[in-house]
Amino acid sequence: MPSTTTTPTPTPTPAAPVANPALSGLYAEVQLFYARQMQHLDAVRAEPFAATFAADGVFDHSPDAPAVRGREAIAAEVRSYNERRFAQDPVQRRHWFNMLDVREQPDGSVHTEFYALVLTTRPGQFQPVVAPACVVRDVLVREDGELRTLERRVTQDHASF
Amino acid sequence: MPSTTTTPTPTPTPAAPVANPALSGLYAEVQLFYARQMQHLDAVRAEPFAATFAADGVFDHSPDAPAVRGREAIAAEVRSYNERRFAQDPVQRRHWFNMLDVREQPDGSVHTEFYALVLTTRPGQFQPVVAPACVVRDVLVREDGELRTLERRVTQDHASF
Amino acid sequence: MPSTTTTPTPTPTPAAPVANPALSGLYAEVQLFYARQMQHLDAVRAEPFAATFAADGVFDHSPDAPAVRGREAIAAEVRSYNERRFAQDPVQRRHWFNMLDVREQPDGSVHTEFYALVLTTRPGQFQPVVAPACVVRDVLVREDGELRTLERRVTQDHASF
Repeated sequence: MPSTTTTPTPTPTPAAPVANPALSGLYAEVQLFYARQMQHLDAVRAEPFAATFAADGVFDHSPDAPAVRGREAIAAEVRSYNERRFAQDPVQRRHWFNMLDVREQPDGSVHTEFYALVLTTRPGQFQPVVAPACVVRDVLVREDGELRTLERRVTQDHASF
Repeated sequence: MPSTTTTPTPTPTPAAPVANPALSGLYAEVQLFYARQMQHLDAVRAEPFAATFAADGVFDHSPDAPAVRGREAIAAEVRSYNERRFAQDPVQRRHWFNMLDVREQPDGSVHTEFYALVLTTRPGQFQPVVAPACVVRDVLVREDGELRTLERRVTQDHASF
Repeated sequence: MPSTTTTPTPTPTPAAPVANPALSGLYAEVQLFYARQMQHLDAVRAEPFAATFAADGVFDHSPDAPAVRGREAIAAEVRSYNERRFAQDPVQRRHWFNMLDVREQPDGSVHTEFYALVLTTRPGQFQPVVAPACVVRDVLVREDGELRTLERRVTQDHASF
Protein backbone atom coordinates (compact mmCIF):
# COMPACT_ATOMS: atom_id res chain seq x y z
CA MET A 1 0.00 0.00 0.00
CA PRO A 2 1.46 3.41 -0.91
CA SER A 3 2.77 5.50 1.92
CA THR A 4 0.26 8.23 1.11
CA THR A 5 -2.34 6.21 3.00
CA THR A 6 -0.58 6.69 6.33
CA THR A 7 -1.14 9.87 8.28
CA PRO A 8 2.06 11.65 9.32
CA THR A 9 0.30 13.98 11.74
CA PRO A 10 -1.80 11.64 13.93
CA THR A 11 -4.96 13.10 15.35
CA PRO A 12 -4.85 13.32 19.15
CA THR A 13 -7.68 11.58 20.96
CA PRO A 14 -10.21 14.29 21.78
CA ALA A 15 -10.53 14.95 25.50
CA ALA A 16 -14.02 16.32 24.95
CA PRO A 17 -16.65 16.15 22.23
CA VAL A 18 -15.69 18.39 19.34
CA ALA A 19 -18.15 20.47 17.38
CA ASN A 20 -19.65 19.22 14.12
CA PRO A 21 -17.84 21.16 11.38
CA ALA A 22 -20.87 20.87 9.09
CA LEU A 23 -23.34 22.33 11.56
CA SER A 24 -21.03 25.09 12.76
CA GLY A 25 -20.36 26.46 9.28
CA LEU A 26 -16.69 25.54 9.60
CA TYR A 27 -16.79 23.15 6.66
CA ALA A 28 -17.97 25.84 4.24
CA GLU A 29 -15.58 28.34 5.80
CA VAL A 30 -12.63 26.04 5.05
CA GLN A 31 -13.80 25.55 1.47
CA LEU A 32 -14.07 29.30 0.98
CA PHE A 33 -10.66 29.83 2.58
CA TYR A 34 -9.05 27.35 0.17
CA ALA A 35 -10.80 28.84 -2.87
CA ARG A 36 -9.36 32.27 -2.15
CA GLN A 37 -5.95 30.93 -1.10
CA MET A 38 -5.45 28.92 -4.26
CA GLN A 39 -6.85 31.59 -6.58
CA HIS A 40 -4.05 33.77 -5.19
CA LEU A 41 -1.46 31.05 -5.85
CA ASP A 42 -2.65 30.38 -9.40
CA ALA A 43 -2.56 34.08 -10.21
CA VAL A 44 0.95 34.23 -8.67
CA ARG A 45 -0.15 36.87 -6.18
CA ALA A 46 2.71 35.96 -3.85
CA GLU A 47 2.02 38.29 -0.91
CA PRO A 48 -1.75 37.74 -0.74
CA PHE A 49 -1.09 33.99 -0.92
CA ALA A 50 1.51 34.18 1.86
CA ALA A 51 -0.95 36.21 3.95
CA THR A 52 -3.21 33.14 4.12
CA PHE A 53 -0.52 31.45 6.23
CA ALA A 54 0.03 32.00 9.93
CA ALA A 55 2.91 34.31 10.87
CA ASP A 56 5.15 31.26 11.43
CA GLY A 57 3.37 29.07 8.88
CA VAL A 58 5.22 26.26 7.08
CA PHE A 59 4.76 25.65 3.35
CA ASP A 60 6.18 22.35 2.10
CA HIS A 61 4.68 22.10 -1.37
CA SER A 62 6.98 20.13 -3.61
CA PRO A 63 9.76 17.53 -3.52
CA ASP A 64 11.67 19.95 -5.80
CA ALA A 65 11.58 22.80 -3.29
CA PRO A 66 12.62 23.21 0.34
CA ALA A 67 10.00 23.70 3.05
CA VAL A 68 9.84 27.38 3.97
CA ARG A 69 8.61 29.14 7.13
CA GLY A 70 7.05 32.55 7.57
CA ARG A 71 5.14 34.79 5.20
CA GLU A 72 8.15 36.54 3.73
CA ALA A 73 9.84 33.23 2.91
CA ILE A 74 6.60 31.80 1.51
CA ALA A 75 6.08 34.78 -0.79
CA ALA A 76 9.71 34.55 -1.91
CA GLU A 77 9.36 30.83 -2.61
CA VAL A 78 6.18 31.34 -4.68
CA ARG A 79 7.90 33.99 -6.75
CA SER A 80 11.12 32.01 -7.15
CA TYR A 81 9.34 28.74 -7.97
CA ASN A 82 7.34 30.40 -10.72
CA GLU A 83 10.44 32.13 -12.05
CA ARG A 84 12.49 28.91 -12.10
CA ARG A 85 9.77 26.78 -13.63
CA PHE A 86 7.74 29.04 -15.85
CA ALA A 87 9.76 32.10 -16.92
CA GLN A 88 10.57 30.40 -20.25
CA ASP A 89 7.36 28.37 -20.38
CA PRO A 90 4.31 30.52 -19.68
CA VAL A 91 1.45 28.58 -18.16
CA GLN A 92 -1.82 29.11 -16.36
CA ARG A 93 -1.99 26.69 -13.46
CA ARG A 94 -5.18 25.81 -11.58
CA HIS A 95 -5.10 23.91 -8.30
CA TRP A 96 -8.19 21.81 -7.69
CA PHE A 97 -9.09 20.29 -4.30
CA ASN A 98 -11.56 17.50 -3.54
CA MET A 99 -12.70 15.11 -0.82
CA LEU A 100 -12.03 17.57 1.97
CA ASP A 101 -11.92 16.14 5.48
CA VAL A 102 -12.06 18.68 8.33
CA ARG A 103 -11.44 17.74 11.97
CA GLU A 104 -11.57 20.26 14.77
CA GLN A 105 -9.01 19.59 17.48
CA PRO A 106 -9.42 20.13 21.23
CA ASP A 107 -6.68 22.79 21.10
CA GLY A 108 -8.78 24.85 18.68
CA SER A 109 -6.73 24.04 15.60
CA VAL A 110 -8.29 22.35 12.59
CA HIS A 111 -6.74 19.41 10.77
CA THR A 112 -7.66 18.96 7.13
CA GLU A 113 -6.81 16.23 4.63
CA PHE A 114 -7.83 16.36 0.99
CA TYR A 115 -6.96 15.45 -2.59
CA ALA A 116 -5.34 17.98 -4.90
CA LEU A 117 -4.70 18.08 -8.61
CA VAL A 118 -2.90 20.63 -10.75
CA LEU A 119 -4.21 21.59 -14.19
CA THR A 120 -1.59 23.33 -16.34
CA THR A 121 -2.64 25.07 -19.54
CA ARG A 122 -0.20 26.45 -22.10
CA PRO A 123 -1.06 29.13 -24.68
CA GLY A 124 -3.38 27.82 -27.37
CA GLN A 125 -3.35 24.32 -25.89
CA PHE A 126 -6.98 23.24 -25.44
CA GLN A 127 -6.21 20.31 -23.12
CA PRO A 128 -4.43 21.10 -19.85
CA VAL A 129 -1.86 18.73 -18.38
CA VAL A 130 -3.65 17.07 -15.47
CA ALA A 131 -0.95 16.15 -12.96
CA PRO A 132 0.18 15.30 -10.40
CA ALA A 133 -2.45 13.80 -8.12
CA CYS A 134 -1.60 14.77 -4.55
CA VAL A 135 -2.76 14.49 -0.96
CA VAL A 136 -2.51 17.59 1.20
CA ARG A 137 -2.58 17.70 5.01
CA ASP A 138 -2.95 21.09 6.65
CA VAL A 139 -3.05 22.38 10.18
CA LEU A 140 -5.23 25.49 10.25
CA VAL A 141 -5.39 28.02 13.08
CA ARG A 142 -7.14 31.33 13.62
CA GLU A 143 -5.47 34.72 13.70
CA ASP A 144 -7.80 37.66 14.44
CA GLY A 145 -10.70 35.30 13.85
CA GLU A 146 -9.55 34.34 10.34
CA LEU A 147 -8.38 30.89 9.24
CA ARG A 148 -4.69 30.63 8.42
CA THR A 149 -2.52 27.69 7.35
CA LEU A 150 -0.01 26.89 10.09
CA GLU A 151 1.46 23.91 8.29
CA ARG A 152 0.99 22.34 4.86
CA ARG A 153 2.39 18.97 3.82
CA VAL A 154 1.92 17.78 0.23
CA THR A 155 2.59 14.24 -1.00
CA GLN A 156 2.47 13.35 -4.69
CA ASP A 157 0.93 10.00 -5.58
CA HIS A 158 3.42 9.06 -8.28
CA ALA A 159 6.31 9.40 -5.81
CA SER A 160 4.56 7.65 -2.91
CA PHE A 161 4.83 3.95 -3.77
CA MET B 1 0.37 37.11 -16.47
CA PRO B 2 -2.70 35.84 -18.33
CA SER B 3 -5.70 38.09 -18.49
CA THR B 4 -7.78 35.51 -16.63
CA THR B 5 -6.30 36.84 -13.41
CA THR B 6 -7.97 40.24 -13.79
CA THR B 7 -11.54 40.67 -12.65
CA PRO B 8 -13.82 42.15 -15.30
CA THR B 9 -16.63 42.80 -12.83
CA PRO B 10 -14.95 44.70 -9.98
CA THR B 11 -16.42 44.19 -6.55
CA PRO B 12 -17.83 47.43 -5.11
CA THR B 13 -16.43 48.48 -1.76
CA PRO B 14 -18.95 47.29 0.85
CA ALA B 15 -20.68 50.16 2.61
CA ALA B 16 -21.46 47.91 5.56
CA PRO B 17 -20.20 44.59 6.91
CA VAL B 18 -21.55 41.74 4.79
CA ALA B 19 -22.67 38.42 6.17
CA ASN B 20 -20.36 35.42 6.30
CA PRO B 21 -21.51 33.14 3.47
CA ALA B 22 -20.26 30.07 5.34
CA LEU B 23 -22.20 30.76 8.53
CA SER B 24 -25.37 31.83 6.75
CA GLY B 25 -25.67 28.65 4.70
CA LEU B 26 -25.23 30.68 1.51
CA TYR B 27 -22.05 28.86 0.52
CA ALA B 28 -23.76 25.46 0.50
CA GLU B 29 -26.81 26.96 -1.18
CA VAL B 30 -24.65 28.20 -4.06
CA GLN B 31 -22.97 24.80 -4.40
CA LEU B 32 -26.36 23.09 -4.53
CA PHE B 33 -27.64 25.66 -7.04
CA TYR B 34 -24.70 25.00 -9.35
CA ALA B 35 -25.03 21.22 -9.07
CA ARG B 36 -28.63 21.33 -10.24
CA GLN B 37 -27.97 24.01 -12.86
CA MET B 38 -25.15 22.11 -14.51
CA GLN B 39 -26.83 18.71 -14.28
CA HIS B 40 -29.59 20.35 -16.39
CA LEU B 41 -27.02 21.65 -18.90
CA ASP B 42 -25.18 18.33 -19.21
CA ALA B 43 -28.46 16.50 -19.79
CA VAL B 44 -29.38 19.18 -22.38
CA ARG B 45 -32.54 20.05 -20.49
CA ALA B 46 -32.65 23.48 -22.13
CA GLU B 47 -35.71 25.00 -20.42
CA PRO B 48 -34.89 23.83 -16.86
CA PHE B 49 -31.35 25.12 -17.39
CA ALA B 50 -32.61 28.48 -18.66
CA ALA B 51 -34.97 28.67 -15.66
CA THR B 52 -31.91 28.89 -13.38
CA PHE B 53 -31.19 32.30 -14.92
CA ALA B 54 -32.90 35.54 -13.95
CA ALA B 55 -35.61 36.75 -16.31
CA ASP B 56 -33.12 39.10 -17.99
CA GLY B 57 -30.09 36.87 -17.30
CA VAL B 58 -27.04 36.97 -19.58
CA PHE B 59 -25.28 33.76 -20.63
CA ASP B 60 -21.88 34.29 -22.27
CA HIS B 61 -20.45 30.78 -22.29
CA SER B 62 -18.11 30.40 -25.21
CA PRO B 63 -15.92 32.39 -27.60
CA ASP B 64 -17.67 30.41 -30.36
CA ALA B 65 -21.13 31.63 -29.39
CA PRO B 66 -22.72 35.06 -28.91
CA ALA B 67 -23.80 36.20 -25.45
CA VAL B 68 -27.56 35.76 -25.12
CA ARG B 69 -30.07 37.44 -22.79
CA GLY B 70 -33.29 36.11 -21.33
CA ARG B 71 -34.55 32.61 -20.66
CA GLU B 72 -36.00 31.99 -24.09
CA ALA B 73 -32.77 33.00 -25.81
CA ILE B 74 -30.69 30.96 -23.35
CA ALA B 75 -32.76 27.82 -23.93
CA ALA B 76 -32.52 28.35 -27.69
CA GLU B 77 -28.74 28.80 -27.48
CA VAL B 78 -28.33 25.60 -25.43
CA ARG B 79 -30.36 23.66 -27.95
CA SER B 80 -28.62 25.20 -30.96
CA TYR B 81 -25.11 24.83 -29.52
CA ASN B 82 -25.66 21.14 -28.86
CA GLU B 83 -27.18 20.67 -32.32
CA ARG B 84 -24.28 22.46 -34.07
CA ARG B 85 -21.56 20.75 -32.11
CA PHE B 86 -22.82 17.30 -31.24
CA ALA B 87 -25.59 16.22 -33.65
CA GLN B 88 -23.05 14.18 -35.65
CA ASP B 89 -20.79 13.45 -32.68
CA PRO B 90 -22.78 12.17 -29.70
CA VAL B 91 -21.15 12.95 -26.39
CA GLN B 92 -21.93 13.05 -22.70
CA ARG B 93 -20.50 16.24 -21.27
CA ARG B 94 -19.97 16.89 -17.56
CA HIS B 95 -19.19 20.35 -16.22
CA TRP B 96 -17.11 20.33 -13.04
CA PHE B 97 -16.64 23.37 -10.79
CA ASN B 98 -14.01 23.92 -8.09
CA MET B 99 -12.48 26.58 -5.85
CA LEU B 100 -15.73 28.46 -5.46
CA ASP B 101 -15.46 31.98 -4.07
CA VAL B 102 -18.73 33.58 -2.91
CA ARG B 103 -19.03 37.26 -1.98
CA GLU B 104 -22.27 38.81 -0.83
CA GLN B 105 -22.70 42.37 -2.05
CA PRO B 106 -24.32 45.27 -0.18
CA ASP B 107 -27.03 45.41 -2.88
CA GLY B 108 -28.05 41.83 -2.05
CA SER B 109 -26.52 40.26 -5.12
CA VAL B 110 -23.85 37.58 -4.82
CA HIS B 111 -20.65 37.57 -6.84
CA THR B 112 -19.01 34.21 -7.44
CA GLU B 113 -15.74 33.24 -9.09
CA PHE B 114 -14.63 29.66 -9.64
CA TYR B 115 -12.75 27.20 -11.83
CA ALA B 116 -14.58 25.05 -14.36
CA LEU B 117 -13.60 22.07 -16.45
CA VAL B 118 -15.52 20.14 -19.07
CA LEU B 119 -15.25 16.35 -19.30
CA THR B 120 -16.47 15.01 -22.64
CA THR B 121 -17.04 11.27 -23.05
CA ARG B 122 -17.78 9.58 -26.38
CA PRO B 123 -19.46 6.17 -26.75
CA GLY B 124 -17.19 3.33 -25.65
CA GLN B 125 -14.33 5.75 -24.92
CA PHE B 126 -13.14 5.04 -21.37
CA GLN B 127 -11.13 8.26 -21.00
CA PRO B 128 -13.04 11.54 -21.34
CA VAL B 129 -11.47 14.56 -22.99
CA VAL B 130 -10.63 16.89 -20.10
CA ALA B 131 -10.76 20.43 -21.52
CA PRO B 132 -10.84 23.34 -21.49
CA ALA B 133 -9.89 24.74 -18.09
CA CYS B 134 -11.97 27.85 -17.48
CA VAL B 135 -12.71 30.58 -14.97
CA VAL B 136 -16.33 31.57 -14.48
CA ARG B 137 -17.61 34.78 -12.89
CA ASP B 138 -21.29 34.99 -12.04
CA VAL B 139 -23.59 37.58 -10.59
CA LEU B 140 -26.37 35.79 -8.71
CA VAL B 141 -29.62 37.37 -7.55
CA ARG B 142 -32.78 36.09 -5.87
CA GLU B 143 -36.17 35.74 -7.53
CA ASP B 144 -38.97 34.54 -5.25
CA GLY B 145 -36.30 33.61 -2.73
CA GLU B 146 -34.41 31.36 -5.13
CA LEU B 147 -30.90 31.97 -6.49
CA ARG B 148 -30.72 32.81 -10.19
CA THR B 149 -27.79 33.68 -12.46
CA LEU B 150 -28.10 37.27 -13.61
CA GLU B 151 -24.85 37.25 -15.55
CA ARG B 152 -22.27 34.60 -16.43
CA ARG B 153 -18.89 35.34 -17.98
CA VAL B 154 -16.60 32.42 -18.92
CA THR B 155 -12.94 32.74 -19.88
CA GLN B 156 -10.94 29.79 -21.20
CA ASP B 157 -7.36 29.48 -19.99
CA HIS B 158 -5.86 28.42 -23.31
CA ALA B 159 -7.19 31.59 -24.98
CA SER B 160 -6.28 33.95 -22.14
CA PHE B 161 -2.53 34.51 -22.58
CA MET C 1 -29.69 11.33 -25.18
CA PRO C 2 -27.64 8.92 -23.05
CA SER C 3 -29.49 6.86 -20.52
CA THR C 4 -27.47 8.43 -17.71
CA THR C 5 -29.79 11.40 -17.87
CA THR C 6 -32.76 9.35 -16.66
CA THR C 7 -33.21 8.83 -12.95
CA PRO C 8 -33.60 5.18 -11.97
CA THR C 9 -34.76 5.99 -8.43
CA PRO C 10 -37.55 8.56 -8.92
CA THR C 11 -38.01 11.07 -6.15
CA PRO C 12 -41.42 10.68 -4.45
CA THR C 13 -43.56 13.80 -4.40
CA PRO C 14 -43.00 15.40 -0.99
CA ALA C 15 -46.11 15.33 1.20
CA ALA C 16 -44.81 18.27 3.19
CA PRO C 17 -42.18 20.98 2.76
CA VAL C 18 -38.70 19.53 3.25
CA ALA C 19 -35.87 21.31 5.00
CA ASN C 20 -33.27 23.29 3.07
CA PRO C 21 -30.12 21.10 3.09
CA ALA C 22 -27.91 24.19 2.85
CA LEU C 23 -29.36 25.94 5.87
CA SER C 24 -29.55 22.83 8.02
CA GLY C 25 -25.89 21.93 7.60
CA LEU C 26 -26.86 18.72 5.81
CA TYR C 27 -25.11 19.70 2.59
CA ALA C 28 -21.74 20.07 4.31
CA GLU C 29 -22.38 16.95 6.36
CA VAL C 30 -22.86 14.92 3.17
CA GLN C 31 -19.68 16.37 1.65
CA LEU C 32 -17.73 15.45 4.78
CA PHE C 33 -19.28 11.96 4.83
CA TYR C 34 -18.20 11.34 1.24
CA ALA C 35 -14.67 12.65 1.83
CA ARG C 36 -14.11 10.18 4.64
CA GLN C 37 -15.89 7.32 2.85
CA MET C 38 -13.84 7.62 -0.30
CA GLN C 39 -10.54 8.22 1.48
CA HIS C 40 -11.20 4.80 3.07
CA LEU C 41 -11.90 3.25 -0.33
CA ASP C 42 -8.81 4.75 -1.99
CA ALA C 43 -6.61 3.53 0.87
CA VAL C 44 -8.27 0.09 0.53
CA ARG C 45 -9.42 0.19 4.14
CA ALA C 46 -12.16 -2.34 3.41
CA GLU C 47 -13.85 -2.55 6.84
CA PRO C 48 -13.90 1.19 7.58
CA PHE C 49 -15.28 1.75 4.06
CA ALA C 50 -17.96 -0.91 4.55
CA ALA C 51 -18.86 0.69 7.91
CA THR C 52 -20.03 3.80 6.03
CA PHE C 53 -22.84 1.68 4.57
CA ALA C 54 -26.07 0.81 6.39
CA ALA C 55 -26.25 -2.68 7.85
CA ASP C 56 -28.17 -3.87 4.79
CA GLY C 57 -26.57 -1.39 2.40
CA VAL C 58 -26.19 -2.17 -1.30
CA PHE C 59 -22.98 -1.36 -3.20
CA ASP C 60 -23.28 -1.60 -6.99
CA HIS C 61 -20.08 0.06 -8.13
CA SER C 62 -19.02 -1.41 -11.45
CA PRO C 63 -20.36 -3.23 -14.50
CA ASP C 64 -17.49 -5.69 -13.92
CA ALA C 65 -18.64 -6.61 -10.42
CA PRO C 66 -21.92 -7.89 -8.94
CA ALA C 67 -23.96 -5.70 -6.61
CA VAL C 68 -23.34 -6.77 -3.02
CA ARG C 69 -25.42 -6.29 0.13
CA GLY C 70 -24.33 -5.90 3.74
CA ARG C 71 -21.10 -4.70 5.31
CA GLU C 72 -19.34 -8.05 5.30
CA ALA C 73 -20.04 -8.57 1.61
CA ILE C 74 -19.04 -4.97 0.79
CA ALA C 75 -15.72 -5.31 2.60
CA ALA C 76 -15.09 -8.64 0.83
CA GLU C 77 -15.90 -7.08 -2.56
CA VAL C 78 -13.53 -4.14 -1.96
CA ARG C 79 -10.74 -6.52 -1.03
CA SER C 80 -11.43 -8.91 -3.89
CA TYR C 81 -11.81 -6.15 -6.51
CA ASN C 82 -8.48 -4.66 -5.56
CA GLU C 83 -6.85 -8.08 -5.56
CA ARG C 84 -8.27 -9.00 -8.99
CA ARG C 85 -7.47 -5.70 -10.61
CA PHE C 86 -4.35 -4.37 -8.94
CA ALA C 87 -2.35 -7.21 -7.32
CA GLN C 88 -0.03 -7.29 -10.35
CA ASP C 89 -0.44 -3.59 -11.19
CA PRO C 90 0.04 -1.41 -8.13
CA VAL C 91 -1.87 1.86 -8.33
CA GLN C 92 -3.03 4.70 -6.13
CA ARG C 93 -6.62 5.49 -7.00
CA ARG C 94 -8.41 8.71 -6.02
CA HIS C 95 -12.15 9.07 -6.37
CA TRP C 96 -13.29 12.64 -6.98
CA PHE C 97 -16.91 13.81 -6.64
CA ASN C 98 -18.48 16.99 -7.98
CA MET C 99 -21.82 18.70 -8.61
CA LEU C 100 -23.44 17.16 -5.57
CA ASP C 101 -27.22 17.35 -5.42
CA VAL C 102 -28.81 16.57 -2.04
CA ARG C 103 -32.56 16.10 -1.58
CA GLU C 104 -34.12 15.31 1.77
CA GLN C 105 -37.07 12.96 1.51
CA PRO C 106 -40.24 13.01 3.61
CA ASP C 107 -39.31 9.57 5.01
CA GLY C 108 -36.10 11.01 6.45
CA SER C 109 -33.79 9.46 3.88
CA VAL C 110 -31.58 11.62 1.69
CA HIS C 111 -31.22 11.17 -2.07
CA THR C 112 -27.99 12.35 -3.64
CA GLU C 113 -26.87 12.53 -7.24
CA PHE C 114 -23.40 13.62 -8.30
CA TYR C 115 -20.57 13.24 -10.80
CA ALA C 116 -17.58 11.01 -10.04
CA LEU C 117 -14.21 10.54 -11.65
CA VAL C 118 -11.41 8.13 -10.86
CA LEU C 119 -7.77 9.23 -11.03
CA THR C 120 -5.36 6.29 -11.19
CA THR C 121 -1.65 6.90 -10.65
CA ARG C 122 1.03 4.26 -11.23
CA PRO C 123 4.52 4.35 -9.67
CA GLY C 124 6.67 7.09 -11.18
CA GLN C 125 3.92 8.10 -13.61
CA PHE C 126 3.40 11.86 -13.27
CA GLN C 127 0.06 11.95 -15.10
CA PRO C 128 -2.77 9.86 -13.65
CA VAL C 129 -5.27 8.11 -15.89
CA VAL C 130 -8.43 10.19 -15.59
CA ALA C 131 -11.34 7.79 -16.21
CA PRO C 132 -14.10 6.87 -16.25
CA ALA C 133 -16.56 9.75 -15.82
CA CYS C 134 -19.52 8.47 -13.81
CA VAL C 135 -22.80 9.49 -12.25
CA VAL C 136 -23.57 8.17 -8.79
CA ARG C 137 -26.99 8.03 -7.14
CA ASP C 138 -27.12 7.23 -3.44
CA VAL C 139 -29.83 6.76 -0.87
CA LEU C 140 -28.48 7.85 2.51
CA VAL C 141 -30.04 7.05 5.88
CA ARG C 142 -29.09 7.65 9.50
CA GLU C 143 -27.94 4.98 11.94
CA ASP C 144 -27.27 6.24 15.48
CA GLY C 145 -27.39 9.76 14.10
CA GLU C 146 -24.69 9.14 11.51
CA LEU C 147 -25.15 9.16 7.73
CA ARG C 148 -24.82 5.77 6.04
CA THR C 149 -25.20 4.71 2.41
CA LEU C 150 -28.23 2.45 2.05
CA GLU C 151 -27.90 2.08 -1.69
CA ARG C 152 -25.36 3.17 -4.30
CA ARG C 153 -25.86 2.96 -8.05
CA VAL C 154 -23.01 3.95 -10.38
CA THR C 155 -23.33 4.49 -14.12
CA GLN C 156 -20.30 5.06 -16.34
CA ASP C 157 -20.68 7.61 -19.12
CA HIS C 158 -18.79 5.68 -21.79
CA ALA C 159 -21.17 2.72 -21.37
CA SER C 160 -24.36 4.80 -21.18
CA PHE C 161 -25.08 5.74 -24.80
